[in-house]
Amino acid sequence: MKKISRRTFNKTLSKGLGGAALVSSMPLAACGLNGTSKNQNSLGIALVGLGSYSTYQLAPALQDTHYCHLAGIVTGTPEKEQQWAKRYNIPKTHIYNYENFDAIAQNDDIDIVYVVLPNSMHADFSIRAAKAGKHVICEKPMAMNVEECNAIIDACKKAQVKLGIGYRLHSEPYTQEVKRLVREKTFGNINYISADAAYQSLTNPNQWRLNKSLSGGGALMNMGVYSIQSLIYGSGQNPVSVTAQEFSTRPDYFKDTDETITAQFEFPSGTVGQMMTSHNVRANRLFASCDKGWFELDPASTYIPLAGRTSRRELNFPQESQQKLQMDDFARHVLEGTPNKAPGEMGKRDMIIVEAIYNSIAGGNKKIALDLGHMGITDS
Amino acid sequence: MKKISRRTFNKTLSKGLGGAALVSSMPLAACGLNGTSKNQNSLGIALVGLGSYSTYQLAPALQDTHYCHLAGIVTGTPEKEQQWAKRYNIPKTHIYNYENFDAIAQNDDIDIVYVVLPNSMHADFSIRAAKAGKHVICEKPMAMNVEECNAIIDACKKAQVKLGIGYRLHSEPYTQEVKRLVREKTFGNINYISADAAYQSLTNPNQWRLNKSLSGGGALMNMGVYSIQSLIYGSGQNPVSVTAQEFSTRPDYFKDTDETITAQFEFPSGTVGQMMTSHNVRANRLFASCDKGWFELDPASTYIPLAGRTSRRELNFPQESQQKLQMDDFARHVLEGTPNKAPGEMGKRDMIIVEAIYNSIAGGNKKIALDLGHMGITDS
Repeated sequence: MKKISRRTFNKTLSKGLGGAALVSSMPLAACGLNGTSKNQNSLGIALVGLGSYSTYQLAPALQDTHYCHLAGIVTGTPEKEQQWAKRYNIPKTHIYNYENFDAIAQNDDIDIVYVVLPNSMHADFSIRAAKAGKHVICEKPMAMNVEECNAIIDACKKAQVKLGIGYRLHSEPYTQEVKRLVREKTFGNINYISADAAYQSLTNPNQWRLNKSLSGGGALMNMGVYSIQSLIYGSGQNPVSVTAQEFSTRPDYFKDTDETITAQFEFPSGTVGQMMTSHNVRANRLFASCDKGWFELDPASTYIPLAGRTSRRELNFPQESQQKLQMDDFARHVLEGTPNKAPGEMGKRDMIIVEAIYNSIAGGNKKIALDLGHMGITDS
Repeated sequence: MKKISRRTFNKTLSKGLGGAALVSSMPLAACGLNGTSKNQNSLGIALVGLGSYSTYQLAPALQDTHYCHLAGIVTGTPEKEQQWAKRYNIPKTHIYNYENFDAIAQNDDIDIVYVVLPNSMHADFSIRAAKAGKHVICEKPMAMNVEECNAIIDACKKAQVKLGIGYRLHSEPYTQEVKRLVREKTFGNINYISADAAYQSLTNPNQWRLNKSLSGGGALMNMGVYSIQSLIYGSGQNPVSVTAQEFSTRPDYFKDTDETITAQFEFPSGTVGQMMTSHNVRANRLFASCDKGWFELDPASTYIPLAGRTSRRELNFPQESQQKLQMDDFARHVLEGTPNKAPGEMGKRDMIIVEAIYNSIAGGNKKIALDLGHMGITDS
């Protein structure tokens, strides 16, 4: 596992303070401990919500990013303000809470707001960020339902800001290789694709992910979104139907959210897809069987380094922080107009599928037809 | 892949000719080219149906078995009589066709009849074999439906002969290891089990397996039975419900049999099971995720050597003909009363599940409850 180096970013080099001239005259100071240098136009990111994902993944990754940097934080927990201010050298002026968040509009050092809150707060803060004139990265799942996804997309369009979903794998090299194999039809037609994304929750029944009013749903709204993503980029198509089943074996622990869900997808080319997601199972794999071979990622969607192989060879790509790659890709999209690898339409498409899966279960496991066209598919 | 040696079995040593005394005085002659020796009571097997499975798997395996040997053949194709008589030194008196088959009752050299015919003929020939006083091995799937399974079981009981199903994996070492891991709860509770068993048929739409009147069904009646078996011995339990879906992408080729079927199983302990079987996909795997680790076979049900691993180690067992082990186990069951590893009740149980899967599909993918108890589970 790659050890992510942490360094204190020299604020004087940030874009907001007119870094361009400084950088060219101070090349050494612009280098991180590991040699990473910031682009002269590096964009400032504010993290909204300082839970474990921000603490252990995003903030460390932002020390290594080239096109963006940690410029501010938004938290509802006063104790975290000091800790983060000290650790990452964040000035008081760049620290917000949920009430005064909208004042971020006046902060020119912050270009991007990354919403890392419980799902129920995604729409509210993404829309407020857009209204504040900031580009938005919204964690997955995009929102509680499709209606909220539409509201976020509309708000970003209206404010003319960019919108990305926190789908880190679209910048990750093993996933890129899968997309290339699919795009180039390396193994011919894909007849079957299977995606499991699950972990086992045992010790904290009161976490927000297991509280439906905060999460909108259980395993499906969490790891299930990775299974859906895997089936789509692993087949290069959107499904035309979905059928689903729910399993409950520990109802005392999983009080009001889904524990395990399986679903079957039909795709236009004839690919048959099957997925499993769970908060009570450990599994993480993408497998595709094709006319001329197969490919597999296992693990396929964890933070720890992915691994994979095809019927021809073992895959072997350099390991980097997935979140570093993801945030740099989004920053480049903003700065240079490179493709948005995980646009809002993709998050909305996945939410349409999530709703169809829940509807299939509610309707006695019946097949639900979908009409998604090419919606949300970025590069195949 | 193990090369199976072929040798001509010395008929004078067979049990039917009073081999016991001869064997003890002729130890060298009792040894095969590869050193395999026949038990002095080695049972004579007649293969009914000389298709590719008999030709390339069973007959070669019977050259290496210790407790049984190829003693006769039953075929509807006159040209095969000579070929087989010559290759395996089978006397004319031990060769039957489908019309004069019942005369096998008078042949004391034949103890076991192995029915390797298309599914539609399993019941008829198994019952006729029982009536002839012969022990019966019936290939999988046991029959066309549960009703026929009952008829076979009843006929064998009435005739007081033993009945085994051609489930070769119950004698295979990787499968035994899986059953041991399950029985001893090595990895704790099994939360999820997944079984894929499928191959791709491309060039022969007229084969009997794709003709419903001969096969009774497509992928599910063929490889699907392995998926069902995997889920059961991989979890150590019979399912309490099944839900299923059917997929058709090449209806011109798969005219009247199922191409791909997925199904989800609920088990009493809470294990969630998922299976896929197909005649249009290449996949063969058993995976179980447990509280304290996982185990996997891949391939899990092919004739070629199986392979497997657990969260602790790679599995590595000697490779032998699965069919050799299977037939020797059944012969020992007859000779010595060792357990019947794949009794008729197991074949019937699987046919109940097959029928439930077809019923689920016919009923719009609805969940079908099952009440199987411990039926067909032999050693867990």
